[in-house]
Amino acid sequence: MKNKWVLLIETTDRQGLIFEITKILANNNLNIEKNNEFVDVPNNRFFMRSLINGELNEEKIKLQLQKILPNAIITLKKQAKKDIVILATKEPHALGDMLIKHQFGNLNANIKAVISNHEILKDLVKKFDIEFFYVNDKSRQEHEKEVSKIIDKFSPQYVVLAKYMLILSDDFVQKYPNKIINIHHSFLPAFIGASPYKQAFLRGVKIIGATSHFVTKDLDDGAIIFQDVVSVDHTFSPTDMALKGKDVETSVLANALKLVFDDRVFVYNNKTVIL
Amino acid sequence: MKNKWVLLIETTDRQGLIFEITKILANNNLNIEKNNEFVDVPNNRFFMRSLINGELNEEKIKLQLQKILPNAIITLKKQAKKDIVILATKEPHALGDMLIKHQFGNLNANIKAVISNHEILKDLVKKFDIEFFYVNDKSRQEHEKEVSKIIDKFSPQYVVLAKYMLILSDDFVQKYPNKIINIHHSFLPAFIGASPYKQAFLRGVKIIGATSHFVTKDLDDGAIIFQDVVSVDHTFSPTDMALKGKDVETSVLANALKLVFDDRVFVYNNKTVIL
Amino acid sequence: MKNKWVLLIETTDRQGLIFEITKILANNNLNIEKNNEFVDVPNNRFFMRSLINGELNEEKIKLQLQKILPNAIITLKKQAKKDIVILATKEPHALGDMLIKHQFGNLNANIKAVISNHEILKDLVKKFDIEFFYVNDKSRQEHEKEVSKIIDKFSPQYVVLAKYMLILSDDFVQKYPNKIINIHHSFLPAFIGASPYKQAFLRGVKIIGATSHFVTKDLDDGAIIFQDVVSVDHTFSPTDMALKGKDVETSVLANALKLVFDDRVFVYNNKTVIL
Amino acid sequence: MKNKWVLLIETTDRQGLIFEITKILANNNLNIEKNNEFVDVPNNRFFMRSLINGELNEEKIKLQLQKILPNAIITLKKQAKKDIVILATKEPHALGDMLIKHQFGNLNANIKAVISNHEILKDLVKKFDIEFFYVNDKSRQEHEKEVSKIIDKFSPQYVVLAKYMLILSDDFVQKYPNKIINIHHSFLPAFIGASPYKQAFLRGVKIIGATSHFVTKDLDDGAIIFQDVVSVDHTFSPTDMALKGKDVETSVLANALKLVFDDRVFVYNNKTVIL
Repeated sequence: MKNKWVLLIETTDRQGLIFEITKILANNNLNIEKNNEFVDVPNNRFFMRSLINGELNEEKIKLQLQKILPNAIITLKKQAKKDIVILATKEPHALGDMLIKHQFGNLNANIKAVISNHEILKDLVKKFDIEFFYVNDKSRQEHEKEVSKIIDKFSPQYVVLAKYMLILSDDFVQKYPNKIINIHHSFLPAFIGASPYKQAFLRGVKIIGATSHFVTKDLDDGAIIFQDVVSVDHTFSPTDMALKGKDVETSVLANALKLVFDDRVFVYNNKTVIL
Repeated sequence: MKNKWVLLIETTDRQGLIFEITKILANNNLNIEKNNEFVDVPNNRFFMRSLINGELNEEKIKLQLQKILPNAIITLKKQAKKDIVILATKEPHALGDMLIKHQFGNLNANIKAVISNHEILKDLVKKFDIEFFYVNDKSRQEHEKEVSKIIDKFSPQYVVLAKYMLILSDDFVQKYPNKIINIHHSFLPAFIGASPYKQAFLRGVKIIGATSHFVTKDLDDGAIIFQDVVSVDHTFSPTDMALKGKDVETSVLANALKLVFDDRVFVYNNKTVIL
Repeated sequence: MKNKWVLLIETTDRQGLIFEITKILANNNLNIEKNNEFVDVPNNRFFMRSLINGELNEEKIKLQLQKILPNAIITLKKQAKKDIVILATKEPHALGDMLIKHQFGNLNANIKAVISNHEILKDLVKKFDIEFFYVNDKSRQEHEKEVSKIIDKFSPQYVVLAKYMLILSDDFVQKYPNKIINIHHSFLPAFIGASPYKQAFLRGVKIIGATSHFVTKDLDDGAIIFQDVVSVDHTFSPTDMALKGKDVETSVLANALKLVFDDRVFVYNNKTVIL
Repeated sequence: MKNKWVLLIETTDRQGLIFEITKILANNNLNIEKNNEFVDVPNNRFFMRSLINGELNEEKIKLQLQKILPNAIITLKKQAKKDIVILATKEPHALGDMLIKHQFGNLNANIKAVISNHEILKDLVKKFDIEFFYVNDKSRQEHEKEVSKIIDKFSPQYVVLAKYMLILSDDFVQKYPNKIINIHHSFLPAFIGASPYKQAFLRGVKIIGATSHFVTKDLDDGAIIFQDVVSVDHTFSPTDMALKGKDVETSVLANALKLVFDDRVFVYNNKTVIL
């Protein structure tokens, strides 16, 4: 990954954009290894992701791009592992998958800390030599203040909710826009809120699923990154569904994190564009 | 399928049921080729489906069973193709799949007639020598009265809504309890009602799906028989979703009908038990 | 689709390609609506597909592109329905799906003719006012000569084998390079050749599938376009598998054809690059 | 799970079997909570699994059953966690998933030991306070002798190969008939043997998968328990496939183990019947 850069550009669409952008890259003697582009035609919005190979001066390239695209959102960064903080409650499956991938170099992220409103997962986290913080949730305000303080100490690029079973306040969420990633245990928008497996059981669905999404102030309503489902049938109790669902929750979160950590995800209009 | 019978029993659960039922079958010199059983423990409800091979007197067996299971719902019928009437509106995909399967003996049903509130599908239906009835929908009451009259003429075991885009009244639905099967173009309970693909597009989901269910008086709320999904991404417009969705609608309806026409589906508590 | 063009470029990779290509498009006042690019790094091979909006002189643009890319394979064509000829044998499902989509404008192709080594499907094809040719297969050489003559009469862009159950000779295949698309009833490379469902049954697999691929001289070995699977279990006989498999065959072929007819598929090194 | 028993019966099919078997259960005042039955008609073979609730004398019931079914294979056991030994090589994903599930009571098995031909996983295993044995593989014979000795010390009901990358000898395999469960990183029978992801890459498949099966003397040829696939495309290198494949390997093995540990799997004719 030496000298690999990711360039993300989001701007109003107009003719000639790819030409003008790639001209700057070519003039700087840079090689494009992968290039993907999408135009949201109804909204006249242009998205482009380039994987670039070569030596470059980050500020210089950005300035040249800003000159031709004054209103664009431009991100240019070296491909690198992201720093993350994980929030969890009691369930070990999604967290455990991340801890093992992290330990063996397969996560594309550095887990700086795990914060929980319970102590059940402390032991598991400590096994992997990751800092664990227990923050009681007697008062939501106090809880969030404390959690926020810990998060900010590590300046993570992303906060991952790996089955964190508290609802975050608007204030908290707005501190970390497009930085908090959740795994919800249903194929949203079905079964928003509490006990989705119980809701699924009562409705008698033949599939259950999981959704990973960015967290916004509206519950389970942020931009969806990845979703998947598995089959169930009449023999499944809510508990059986929850058990079977854990594996799909784990894999959906893993898939979503891979996309985000590889800098492939734009958020626009409360939806994701994944290049 | 000569001398193959299906026995369906639904009753309050108690000890010894399988023994007592199979005793009657054994005493009548009948062979059980397949046997499946399910107990809904919280509701103390017993379901059993037996595929029976042999010569039998239907009334006699039923009487013997009723004697030991006075409150049971007992169905005993020769395996046979079901008579059906199809309601459709403008889209040919689900209807077309049924017409071709029917023509080549792969539907396990006899299509007695197709009724539509539009004339677009008339040509297609006539190609396959099936009776087509156009019933205008200017007045819902008049429309349903006329549709009902046509249906009743054919005494079908099932009415299949193959993308029939009108909402049926309670009165109509209650005339055909557990006999009307619908295909809805979303993974219910997400996107109930009109324009589910547009709803899916606006929510930015990464999967779209289809649900086949029995029709009850509450819109898109009846017992679910079969569901499936396919992946979509940010490049899909609502129209693209609708186009891709058609194939999954067709296959979900086909799967549901196969289960129903093979007498494998019980409806209980607004859910299906499929044995 | 007025004034929409597809530009496909395949060439040796080198720095600056996207810039140089899009420069020509920009200089010709053309708008790129979608652009996708892929570099096969180990083989140093560059692939690009641009969906272009605007008025253009096809020959002029191609000449300008050839000047900078003398060894490239360049295709520039107006987005348009493809002309196709279908070969089939006895099974109606894949053919029937195509006929219905064709009739209702959902195929993105004009079916010019259906050729078969049996007469079973004649009736179905005639219903849809498509020319049907029966060509007996007593001698493979004679059969292929006759089939080829009929195909060539229609100059189709693609020949679709919709469950055509004869093996084509090398000579025949080489007349239509990357133009013959087959649907094989297994998840290749498992179960190559005859009776894949019987092979699947004997092996006791828990999934069955279908594969759509370009036809090459080696049986079931051409570049794969699309694959999918469905679950089966121990209760499935080979006949049950074949029945359930039909739906996945139909949908896999439909998906593959959509990709090919939308000019999204490159063939390189006996694999497909789909942009 | 107090007083829950599983009864498995496999025998030659004949009329009246379910009646005769359930009669014995009824006479012993036992309640059947779940009952599934399958007849392999071509082979005239009967399989039944009953989940029984109640107090019983194991030997007495078995004797009564053996009297009416002298040639049957009859298993009657209390529902209980299985003792297992895991063999692994270098990869942590499948093993890690099992360790975490084990730790939190979600595995339905007791991991007695992990044996490996490498020391890479030692640290991970020790974190979870499980015995780890390193056995070098310089000589296959010596290796297997030593592995076998360790396994036998723990008398496990099952040996799980969680990405154990050595081929076991016939002698070793025959010591543990239907007791060794493997996860193979392809949708068998495609890509048997070494480097299936490289094989998949070279063939250009659009799906990759995993297969969990019992180990027999023929490589990757034992009875299949569970299979699943995920989509890939032309952008995937063999390494990318291996990375994406890990999650499906983990979940396929987890699904297979759940079925086996719940005593739902019969092996017959090198295939599984799962009730």
